[in-house]
Formats: sequence, structure tokens, C-alpha cells
Amino acid sequence: MRIPVDIKDHAYEVIVERGAVQKADRYLDLGRKVLLLTEVNIPADYVECIRKQCKECHVVTVKEGEQSKSLPVYGEVMHALVEHGFTRKDCLVSVGGGVVGDLGGFAASTYMRGIDFYNIPTTVLSQVDSSIGGKTAINYDGIKNMVGTFYQPKCVLVDPDTLRTLPRRQVANGLAEALKMAMTSSASLFRIFEEDDPFMQLDRILPEAIGIKADVVMQDEKEANLRKILNFGHTIGHAIETTKLPGECYHGECVALGMVAVTSGQVRERLLAVLKKLEIPTRIDFSTEAVMQALLHDKKKGGESITAVLVDEIGSCRLEEVPPSFFEERLHSILRA
Amino acid sequence: MRIPVDIKDHAYEVIVERGAVQKADRYLDLGRKVLLLTEVNIPADYVECIRKQCKECHVVTVKEGEQSKSLPVYGEVMHALVEHGFTRKDCLVSVGGGVVGDLGGFAASTYMRGIDFYNIPTTVLSQVDSSIGGKTAINYDGIKNMVGTFYQPKCVLVDPDTLRTLPRRQVANGLAEALKMAMTSSASLFRIFEEDDPFMQLDRILPEAIGIKADVVMQDEKEANLRKILNFGHTIGHAIETTKLPGECYHGECVALGMVAVTSGQVRERLLAVLKKLEIPTRIDFSTEAVMQALLHDKKKGGESITAVLVDEIGSCRLEEVPPSFFEERLHSILRA
Repeated sequence: MRIPVDIKDHAYEVIVERGAVQKADRYLDLGRKVLLLTEVNIPADYVECIRKQCKECHVVTVKEGEQSKSLPVYGEVMHALVEHGFTRKDCLVSVGGGVVGDLGGFAASTYMRGIDFYNIPTTVLSQVDSSIGGKTAINYDGIKNMVGTFYQPKCVLVDPDTLRTLPRRQVANGLAEALKMAMTSSASLFRIFEEDDPFMQLDRILPEAIGIKADVVMQDEKEANLRKILNFGHTIGHAIETTKLPGECYHGECVALGMVAVTSGQVRERLLAVLKKLEIPTRIDFSTEAVMQALLHDKKKGGESITAVLVDEIGSCRLEEVPPSFFEERLHSILRA
Repeated sequence: MRIPVDIKDHAYEVIVERGAVQKADRYLDLGRKVLLLTEVNIPADYVECIRKQCKECHVVTVKEGEQSKSLPVYGEVMHALVEHGFTRKDCLVSVGGGVVGDLGGFAASTYMRGIDFYNIPTTVLSQVDSSIGGKTAINYDGIKNMVGTFYQPKCVLVDPDTLRTLPRRQVANGLAEALKMAMTSSASLFRIFEEDDPFMQLDRILPEAIGIKADVVMQDEKEANLRKILNFGHTIGHAIETTKLPGECYHGECVALGMVAVTSGQVRERLLAVLKKLEIPTRIDFSTEAVMQALLHDKKKGGESITAVLVDEIGSCRLEEVPPSFFEERLHSILRA
């Protein structure tokens, strides 16, 4: 399946296809110098498989985790590009999760003022979320995604076969972001989660969720307005994530908690039922004070209003300016008793 | 005088006006957090004058010269932005030469994926050349402008009064780039150089040269084709510059040599006469071997053809694919006997 993304003068496609990695050169122009950026935990056969399809391939492998989205690691990638004499006509391919997608996109967008970037996300989270929309990033001074660019890839290759080796908790982590898109934008996608086993329905869920995200970013590349709906569950979710140790709570799990916190009534009941299927906790331990501190720092505007994304009915949403106290009150409902 | 630059969805103006620095807030939105990036050799009163017009101003002063266009100095600028809590709605203002323009533009383009950038160039070279066109850059692994983005400023403020303190050789350095634009694109601008004292005609030369550069980049932002004409004199010029110690030959002086090398007959005679007025040398010492090595490394394609910009008649030019030997033969004519 080909999902078109058409942002200003950058039109490209997200290819969703089982076995796409095996025939990547059908979709990506690999007949040139390719810097293949990947992570230590990515199965070697994916990397080897892509490498064989390239005319000239140089592999850079970074450590897993957010620590690799740093200025020094970015410098290492740039150094590899310089060392191997990459020109404006060559390209960078990221193979892995959101970390190498964000880092690789940033490197590609800034090497010689921009070379072609291809993304082959291999986690559910990066397939449905971070690979779509052209946000590139590294962290800086301890703040996530502080440095980056808007830079669209030339093509995104989503191969559900790469998910076979992914731990179940990681699959659920990504499905939580797909569920978020269902909550704000698609009652029919939500019903797949509700009526079927989401873990068995990846071939239906992935293209649906990618399509929603693509539609949103096409209408609002730089988060002027509509793109804010993608932040549903993220104000609280991101604040909780900040207060936890790396890996303690996955991103999607935190977003799920954030969604639970800001919903109520029937919407909340249905959401809780799906999260149970996904084996995602809906209450956890945290310090309300620490979470609120992170939330206000994140929004950088203590005292003023914050744009909340609210879902009154599954499949649609509205934006509302609320005071920080709105979130503080809601936190109570997800705190483990 | 206002010169419009309209590149895709980024329309902005270059303001050319004596005393513009005194009333910068008439053109720039300074009623927010402003990171003012400047160099040690910039007169303190320019900085103070801008600072007074800002709601909240934080000054970062870097060392003069290319050494400041580095990843560590870029990191310092980003750190200052984080430290003072800059948001997407704040801005960065560069005050100085091409170094802070390039560095500041790169920082602004990548902080939180892009904040507003204003440029107040205070050298002839940066006023007529580097501030126009949206190329941002830092150097990497010893290669100039290896890392950067295309990012248009919100406004460029050119105040010819800032040139009063500039050494005569630096003025000539910038005028050489303006002369280059005259050579390829404007016989009438060339006549100003020919018939008057260029040092006394800055108010006529600056807007003309800026207008030519703006026209070119509007038609070809990312150097697909037309923008190549801006490289007239640069293939040899840049190669010579690379082989010299920093400050030994100024950029404009090297470009002038490059222009002399690739012209002949009447065109060359007229060019030599103007360069004499500008007190720019038209023959120097260099190692042909070293210059050719730099030239081929720069173009990254030994053996293949290079696009040469050629001027057969002043005010127009053509692009021609030539072998590297073309440049090698021409070098002879600018080598000091």
C-alpha cells in the first residue's frame, strides 16, 4: 500500500508492505553512496539485506536509546559523511526506531544543507508516528527534541515483517499512539482495537494510523494548529515520562495514561477496555508535584493557559485553552491508590 | 529602500537604509526575547543600540573569524537559548559579518525546529552576499560550510553607516563580490565601478548588488541551476583561498583572482582596470599543484567535468561544462611572475 504525503513542494510516499526491506531498491534510489544509520539492537540481517542492495554502503551503528540523539553522536554521523566523501547527490538511510529516524533526519537535513533521507522504521511506534511528518531532532541540555529541523524524507518504508522480533510490550507501546489517532480522528480504527485482537491486526492498523497522521501533517506541517491534535494525551503523558527513569515507562504507555486522565464517562470506559487488551497499565505511581513541575516547564508558561486536546466522542476532538490546574485535577484519576 | 525577497512561502525584505540600526525595531519585532549574536570586533555601540530596542536581550559574543563557525560554538549558542528559556516565538538577531550571519542562521533554523532569524550584516561582503539567500552554515572537519540549512531570515537590515569603521581593504573585499554580480548580470552596475570611485558609491552599489542576488535566489533557492552564476570566479577563487593561511587573502580578493583567470580580451582589460581602483592584486604567488588539488577536492569529482561560469560580455554569462585542465591552464595568467 502506498500512502501519499504531499507537503508543499515535497511529495513522497509511505510504502506499507510486508517484505519491503527485501526489495528496498525498488522504492529507494540506492545506486549511489548510502550512509546506513542503525542501532545496536536492530537485527543484523535487516542491515545486511539493505546493504546488499546499495551501490556503496557505509554503516554507522549507534547505541540504543535517547542518549544517541545528542550533539556528539550527531557529530559522529556528520564525520562519517565527510570521511567517505558524500556529496549532495548521495543519501542517508535510517533503519531502526525513532532514535535513528530523528537523528538521521537531522543529519541528512544539515549535511551540505540537505541530502536525500530515507526512513525504514522497524518499531510500531516509529512506523505509525515519528517517521511520518518530517520532524527531525536531537536532545540538548537534557531537553528532548530541543534541536532539529522540519525536513521531509524522500520515502518511508514500513515493513510489518520487521515487527516479528519486537517484544510484545514494544508493540503495545506503538499501538498506543495508533490508538491515540483513533481516539481523535477515526471511530472505525478504534473499533478494530475494540472488536479484534490489536496485536493480530497490524496490517489493518498500521496503514490506517499512518493515513491519519499523514492527513494531519499535510494540512499543518509546522504545528501551527491542526497538528496539535496529535498531542492528545501528551501533555500529561510527556510530563510523566520526564519524571521516570529511561525505560521505566515507555512513551506510548505514558501517552495512554495521559489519555485516560483527560477522558471521562463512556469514552473513558471504552478506552480502558482497549488498554487492558494492550496490557498497558492505566494507573501508576508518581509524584503529582514532580509531574506538574515537568508539565509547566515543558509548556514554558506557568500560570498561563495550555491548549488541551479533548475527546468527547471517539473519533473526533476539540482544542480548548485550560489552566494548568485542569491537568493537576485530572492526574488524581491515574494515580495508583 | 526595500528589496523584496519572495521564496516560496517565505516572503521578506532587505532594508537598505542609513541609520537603520538606530531604528531597528521599526523593521524587526524586538518585543520578545532576543538572542543577539555578535563578534568581538563589532563596535560596542551597534550592539548597545540594538539591545536597548529589545524587550529582553541576551548577548552572545563569539571570536572573530571562521573558527567560530564550529560545532562547539554552535553548541554554546544553543545552550544560551535553552538557558534563557527561549520559545518558538522568540528570535535570534545576528549583528556582524558573514560568520555570525551563517552561524546565527544555522542556530535559529535548528532551535526548536526553527525560530525567527534577523540578520544585520555590518560588512560590505555580508551585506551584498552572504546575508541574502538563506544559506546558513558552520564548518566541519576542516571543510567550509559543510553543515547547514536553507533557512530564510524574517528580515535583513543593511545600514551603510556601519561600514564607516570598516578598513578599506575589507570594503574592497566586499565590493569584489558586488563586482562579480555586475560582471555576470548588470552592465550598468559595472559602469558605476568603471566610471566612479566605487568606495564613494556604496549607496548605489549595495542596493544594485543585493537586488541582483535576490533575483537569482528567488528563481533558484537551492542552487539547482541559475544560482550557479553566483559562483563566477569562485572555482579558482575558493581553491586559492583554501591553500592560503586564514586572513592572508580575503575571500573577495580570491574571487577577483578567479574572475581574472577565466576572462580574456576586452572583458579582462576592463575588469583589471576596476580591480586596480579597488586596490585588489591581480597576480599572486601560489602553487599550481596545491590549488588544483584543492579545486578537485572541492568539486569532489576528479577527472569529470566542472561547470564553469563564463563571461564573454560584461553583464551576461553562460554556463559551460569544462574539464579540470581548463582551470589549470587559466591559473598561469594570475601567477606572479
